[in-house]
Amino acid sequence: MKDVISVLDFTKTEILQIFELTDKLLTGQFKPNLKGKIIANAFFEPSTRTALSFASAALSSGGKVLGFASDESTSISKGENLADTIRMLDNYADCIVMRHKLDGSAKFASEIASKPVVNAGDGKREHPTQALIDIYTVRSLFHSVEGLTFGFLGDLRYARTVNSMLRILTLFNPKMVYLISPPQLRARLEILNELNYPFKELSDVRDVINEVDVLYVTRIQRERFLDEDEYEKVKESYRVDLKMIEGMKREAAILHPLPRVSEIDRRIDSTPQAKYFLEASYAVPLRSVLLNEVVSGD
Amino acid sequence: MKDVISVLDFTKTEILQIFELTDKLLTGQFKPNLKGKIIANAFFEPSTRTALSFASAALSSGGKVLGFASDESTSISKGENLADTIRMLDNYADCIVMRHKLDGSAKFASEIASKPVVNAGDGKREHPTQALIDIYTVRSLFHSVEGLTFGFLGDLRYARTVNSMLRILTLFNPKMVYLISPPQLRARLEILNELNYPFKELSDVRDVINEVDVLYVTRIQRERFLDEDEYEKVKESYRVDLKMIEGMKREAAILHPLPRVSEIDRRIDSTPQAKYFLEASYAVPLRSVLLNEVVSGD
Amino acid sequence: MKDVISVLDFTKTEILQIFELTDKLLTGQFKPNLKGKIIANAFFEPSTRTALSFASAALSSGGKVLGFASDESTSISKGENLADTIRMLDNYADCIVMRHKLDGSAKFASEIASKPVVNAGDGKREHPTQALIDIYTVRSLFHSVEGLTFGFLGDLRYARTVNSMLRILTLFNPKMVYLISPPQLRARLEILNELNYPFKELSDVRDVINEVDVLYVTRIQRERFLDEDEYEKVKESYRVDLKMIEGMKREAAILHPLPRVSEIDRRIDSTPQAKYFLEASYAVPLRSVLLNEVVSGD
Repeated sequence: MKDVISVLDFTKTEILQIFELTDKLLTGQFKPNLKGKIIANAFFEPSTRTALSFASAALSSGGKVLGFASDESTSISKGENLADTIRMLDNYADCIVMRHKLDGSAKFASEIASKPVVNAGDGKREHPTQALIDIYTVRSLFHSVEGLTFGFLGDLRYARTVNSMLRILTLFNPKMVYLISPPQLRARLEILNELNYPFKELSDVRDVINEVDVLYVTRIQRERFLDEDEYEKVKESYRVDLKMIEGMKREAAILHPLPRVSEIDRRIDSTPQAKYFLEASYAVPLRSVLLNEVVSGD
Repeated sequence: MKDVISVLDFTKTEILQIFELTDKLLTGQFKPNLKGKIIANAFFEPSTRTALSFASAALSSGGKVLGFASDESTSISKGENLADTIRMLDNYADCIVMRHKLDGSAKFASEIASKPVVNAGDGKREHPTQALIDIYTVRSLFHSVEGLTFGFLGDLRYARTVNSMLRILTLFNPKMVYLISPPQLRARLEILNELNYPFKELSDVRDVINEVDVLYVTRIQRERFLDEDEYEKVKESYRVDLKMIEGMKREAAILHPLPRVSEIDRRIDSTPQAKYFLEASYAVPLRSVLLNEVVSGD
Repeated sequence: MKDVISVLDFTKTEILQIFELTDKLLTGQFKPNLKGKIIANAFFEPSTRTALSFASAALSSGGKVLGFASDESTSISKGENLADTIRMLDNYADCIVMRHKLDGSAKFASEIASKPVVNAGDGKREHPTQALIDIYTVRSLFHSVEGLTFGFLGDLRYARTVNSMLRILTLFNPKMVYLISPPQLRARLEILNELNYPFKELSDVRDVINEVDVLYVTRIQRERFLDEDEYEKVKESYRVDLKMIEGMKREAAILHPLPRVSEIDRRIDSTPQAKYFLEASYAVPLRSVLLNEVVSGD
């Protein structure tokens, strides 16, 4: 494996191998080794959570980290093009972890760099390492990912985590996927066209709350709405609270890639279905395993 | 010891043990060991000086560092609550060093985190590691902290370093503490109510300059004044210059937590009483000892 | 060697020794050792490229790095003077790498710091490590630096890289140096007065393009022009494109300290003369050698 650009770069077998290594890391049977290796954390778009989890993954595996947390103070702000910035990082590091707002930028970078590129989220479509963490969480809870019913709630249009999850699920035969969103934030047709499993679009989560095994929630962002009132109304009706999850199976799981703002009521945190903190706890071990796959330590 | 939240979490015996370890570190008889440990430098409020000294303390003890220098580029700016951010850092690091503008935030974080939290300054009241550095400096100069006369000069209302020092002194029987400030910046009643030693409030340092053993100076900040003229007037009369320290004992010490702006004339730097650079030199060793107390290396 | 402040601090012999060590590092015969040493990357003025290359140099040699990427979030923004900030870093690190907008600031810092200071660019005149990288590139291409014809193109007035190169060339007997710039951006008289080799000022590169062995290009910055139209006109006529380099010797080299914006057409990248990416690839090894000269690892 050289690069990690898209969830669809992996076969199901490769994904399960990564999961088994993560299991082993968590039980002390495997230790990733990045000794002597430098990881560049190139966050052209800020993301503390993802950036720091890659940093922790690298450092805890014996690697070193350099990079930037936003493009504001970088040469980018002087007008440098992405290709030149990537060439620079290629000289400075053994692996480039990058986050960028534009679709396809990680792929583009991987074609320029001689070192491996790990996509830490680009554009609206790809966030492969988050999707692996999400699926790993599902597997750890249900033992198998196959045959489950998923509900995706909130912004299904711009959230790269949802788009990555929808596509990685093509490898896992879900029983049914419910796409629950306001009309403005429906999933993109180009994504729906890629899906090989049954799905249904709807707008009210309560119609299916008793059916879903996994409810995947995302933030609805103000900037997606022209009208402030419309935003407030939509936000309110897509907010997960105790009332909304009435009737949810006890063994079902609520996931969220985090950070959350108000889209999950904090009283949900202590319900048995709240699994987003467990999900978050898998970020460092899984990313350690991935970095170890693309860079071998001394 | 799990957390370092307040100066009053320490007994006098514990403080003296920390000082003895710091002595030993400075004479090469002790080496803190943070090998394999990750320290999160979580500066929700910027402070280069404190952040970099913790980084230096961690790195020079074999530890690794990740974190952020302000909350501008963090998930906080996306609206994440502090609890979620702390839970994130708890997954990424072995110890969380945090600076935050709100009183009580380090305590709150320590209740959420499973890993130790070190308060690198929060709100107006607590900056325990700075207070330890300050007292350590006094002890190194006077051999004992007991029975000395202190003068605190400048902003006694908002400066967390002063409030921490006033409270740590309750363990050290000062002979007298003079609180010298403009009326707008007098010490808070809630702090004064905690003091178990003689103190006196006044507004002109010259009334006591010949008496003090330790003059602790802080910056007077423009934003505390509604009126620019008033600020300029106050600033001028609380500026430490050669004239102001006429009559000061030769073996007395001027301390300042730094950074200073104009509140200490640079010509003071070469007087025998100027000890703020010595004080600053103790930041890294003392913080190394403290980190080593809360996190044990491999 | 304690500090690296100016290209003129080096004798030619010392420069050649640095180059030989860099050769050896690149062929695996030499390994810089910064083990246990902390490098402070003090970038009062942002420069991702230079800052990250020093970080990579330090980390790949076993050192550790702390610092800041701009003065916005530092104590400087609270009004601290440079001397106090340098004293702080002197407590925190074994070497201070600094970038600052003011001429003479690195020299000033070196007089205050007990630890070595490496100038990573200050003011308009000095960028010694870049000049060494540039000359090293020339030497690697032409085997010797002596007797070559150089053309400097673009902003010769404010570009510290050009001013450093012009001065380091006083050690290398160039055959001729052409200074090609718009009238507003001509080289400074004080620099020209230092030169001990033949040079000529002109405004059209095409008059000498067939003669130059090395064409050193720099960015022309908008803020140097009062008039936007004037800027656009100048920028256009100093832009290196395929037409402009017609007649250039095949074995000639185009250098650029990077980042570039539009001053070199990307189609130039695939010409045999384009050597700026090679030049960039020498940044980390040469800076590793330099850091190793001023700081010895454990």
